Amino acid sequence: MSFTLSNVITCRAAIAWTINAPLCIEEVEVDPPKAGEVRIKVFSSGICGSDNHILDGTFPVPLPAILGHEGAGVVESIGEGVSSVKPGEDGILMIGLPQCRKCDSCLHAKGNYCLKADLFSSVGLMLDGTTRFTCRGMKVHNLFGTSTFTEYTVMREISVAKIDDAAPLEKVCILACAIPTSYGAAINTAQVTPGSTCVVFGLGGVGSAVVLGCRAAGAARIIGIDINEGKFARAKALGVTDCLNPRNFKKPIQQVVVEMTGVGADFTFEAIGTIETMVAALESCNLSYGVCVSLGVPPVKSQLSLDPMKLLSGRTLKACLLGEYKSRDHIPLLVEDYMKKKIDVNSLITHNLSFIRTVSKNKKIKIK
Amino acid sequence: MSFTLSNVITCRAAIAWTINAPLCIEEVEVDPPKAGEVRIKVFSSGICGSDNHILDGTFPVPLPAILGHEGAGVVESIGEGVSSVKPGEDGILMIGLPQCRKCDSCLHAKGNYCLKADLFSSVGLMLDGTTRFTCRGMKVHNLFGTSTFTEYTVMREISVAKIDDAAPLEKVCILACAIPTSYGAAINTAQVTPGSTCVVFGLGGVGSAVVLGCRAAGAARIIGIDINEGKFARAKALGVTDCLNPRNFKKPIQQVVVEMTGVGADFTFEAIGTIETMVAALESCNLSYGVCVSLGVPPVKSQLSLDPMKLLSGRTLKACLLGEYKSRDHIPLLVEDYMKKKIDVNSLITHNLSFIRTVSKNKKIKIK
Repeated sequence: MSFTLSNVITCRAAIAWTINAPLCIEEVEVDPPKAGEVRIKVFSSGICGSDNHILDGTFPVPLPAILGHEGAGVVESIGEGVSSVKPGEDGILMIGLPQCRKCDSCLHAKGNYCLKADLFSSVGLMLDGTTRFTCRGMKVHNLFGTSTFTEYTVMREISVAKIDDAAPLEKVCILACAIPTSYGAAINTAQVTPGSTCVVFGLGGVGSAVVLGCRAAGAARIIGIDINEGKFARAKALGVTDCLNPRNFKKPIQQVVVEMTGVGADFTFEAIGTIETMVAALESCNLSYGVCVSLGVPPVKSQLSLDPMKLLSGRTLKACLLGEYKSRDHIPLLVEDYMKKKIDVNSLITHNLSFIRTVSKNKKIKIK
Repeated sequence: MSFTLSNVITCRAAIAWTINAPLCIEEVEVDPPKAGEVRIKVFSSGICGSDNHILDGTFPVPLPAILGHEGAGVVESIGEGVSSVKPGEDGILMIGLPQCRKCDSCLHAKGNYCLKADLFSSVGLMLDGTTRFTCRGMKVHNLFGTSTFTEYTVMREISVAKIDDAAPLEKVCILACAIPTSYGAAINTAQVTPGSTCVVFGLGGVGSAVVLGCRAAGAARIIGIDINEGKFARAKALGVTDCLNPRNFKKPIQQVVVEMTGVGADFTFEAIGTIETMVAALESCNLSYGVCVSLGVPPVKSQLSLDPMKLLSGRTLKACLLGEYKSRDHIPLLVEDYMKKKIDVNSLITHNLSFIRTVSKNKKIKIK
C-alpha cells in the first residue's frame, strides 16, 4: 500500500464488479475517514454464505462493491468526533450490524437491529451518502457499512467494536458475525434449556456455531441435518449426537425428526437459507411448545408459505440477526468468553489462508 | 327432558346437520357416561367464531354434530373411575382443550396442547371411537369432545374443569374459551410489558378480551382495528386508546400503524382469522423486537405467505390455543380471579339469551 499527500491509502481489495462473475483483486484508493468514521487495517476476515448469496444474485446489493462483513483489524486513523477507538494498536471487530446507541432499537432492552443498519435494501454507502472506495476511477460501494475483503476499509464508528488487545485477530474475526449469529440464536433467541432436544438444519459454519450454543446451554440431544455427509464427522466432534442426510429418507425430514423424537424437538434452527428448510425446521419442533429459529438469509423476494395451523397449536417462529447481541456492547464480551476458553472459536476455523491465496484458490475470484 | 330406564336422557339440542344450513333444534338422546366420562347439565354456553367457521365450511368437522365448545354446567352423572368431579352441585367448565396430565404436552411446563385433544382433523367422537348423542335414530358427533349447544352433554373427564361452586354459571362460560384464549395471549404468550404499545386486530369477543389482558399487563397504548366502527365505543370503554378502520385509509393498515407509532408496536394480536390480517399484524409490530401473536383460526388448508425478511430483523411470530393455559390446572384460577373482580368478564357479555331464544334469533338456526 502507499500513502498519498491527501492521506488516501492505495491498497489491494477484492472487487465484486457484477454478479455471477469472479471477484477481482484490484488496486483501490481508500479515502481518509470523515467525521464519525474509522479507517481500519484489516487483519482477517471470515467468508460468509451471505457474501456468496450476493455473488449469485439472490441477495442484491449495489455493485461494484467490496464484500466481506466480518473482520478483525486495527484502527489506522479516525475521523472527527470518534471517541470509542483510537489509532494504533486497538484490536477491533468490524461488524455488519451497527449499534448507534441512540435509535429506538438500540435503546430497547431486546432490540439489536440498529436503525442505522444498511442490511436490507442496502445502499452500500456511508451515512453521508458517499463511499470511501475508488477503483480505476470508479466509485465502489461498501457492504453493510463494513467491507472486509480489502487491506484497508473505512467504517462508521457505530459498527466498530473495541475488543481485548490480546485477542488473536486471525481467530476472532468470526466473532463479528458467524459465531454470535448462531451461538446467540441458541442462547438468546431460542433460550435453549438444559436437557432439551435441538435440531440444526445445515452443518456449515453457522450451523456448527449453533451446535456450540446448544451444547453450552445444556442440550441433551442435538440432531444435525445436512445433505453433505462429509460434514458429519466434524459435527459429531462439536457435539452433534445424531446426523441425518435427508436424501437417505423417502419421507420428509420433519417427519423423520418427529418420529425420532416421538414428540418433535424442543428447539430447531435453520442455518441454510431456503424456504423448504425453514418449513421443515418449523414442522420439526414440538407442536405445543416448540421454538423454531430461522438464521439463514433466504433469497430476496422469496415468500415463506406455511400452514398457520402448525403455529396455532403453540409453536413459536423467530428469526434474528447477530443472535440478538448488540454489536458494540455484547460482542466484546463474547471475545472475553473466547479468551477464557468458554467459546471454542478455534474448532470452527477450518482453513487459514492469506488474502491473495484465498482469492486465487476461489474459482469465483480472479486476480487482475 | 326425560330419563329412560337405561338412563338415557332425552333433551333438546341444536344439531348441525350440514354446512351452510341452519342449526336445527331437535330432540336428542344422550347416553350415560362411560368410564372416564362425565354427563353434564349445560347451564350456559358462549357462541364462538369457530362455531361459525364450522357452519360456513372453512373449518371442517364431521357432521351431523352438536356444536359449541365453551360452556358452564353441573355434573349430572359420572362414569367409572371419574374422581375429579362428582354428581350434584359441582360447578364445572366445559373446555374444548383437554388436560390429560399424562401426555408429553401436559407434562411439559409450557405445553398446553394436550395430545388427547380433538381439535385438528377432528373425529368428533369419544376416546373409545363412539358418540353419546343420537337424533332421529342417527348417531351425532360431538365437537372437540365438548358440545355445549344442548341441554345435556357427555364429556371426557379430562376436558372438565371444576370451578368455585359460587361462580355464576351464566357468566363464567366464556372463561372456558374466549377469555383465556385472548387474555392468556396477552399475559402468557406475548408477555405484554408495562408501558408498551399493543395493537389488536378484530374487536369482537376475542379481541376485546385481548384488550383486557393488555390493560392488565400495563400496556400504555392499545390500538384497536376493525372494519365495524359500531364496535369502537365499547372497545374504548374496555381500554382501547385508538380505534382504526382500515377502510378509512388508502395505505395498508400496517403502514398506518408503523407511522402512528413511529417504530411499530411492541405487541400485535390477530383476533380475526384471515391470512391478510395475520400478515398485517406481523408487519405492524416492531421490526427488531416486536412480537405478533395470532389467535384467529384461519381457514383450513389456507397458507400463511410472508416475507421471511420481516422475521429476520428480529420479529417473533407466535400463536396459541387457550392462551397457553392448561385447562384443568389454570382455568379454575381464572374463575377465582373473576370472583375477586380481577378479570372483568361481565363487560364482555353483550347478550344473554335463553337457549331456544338464541337459536330462533339466529338466522342460521331454525327450530324443527
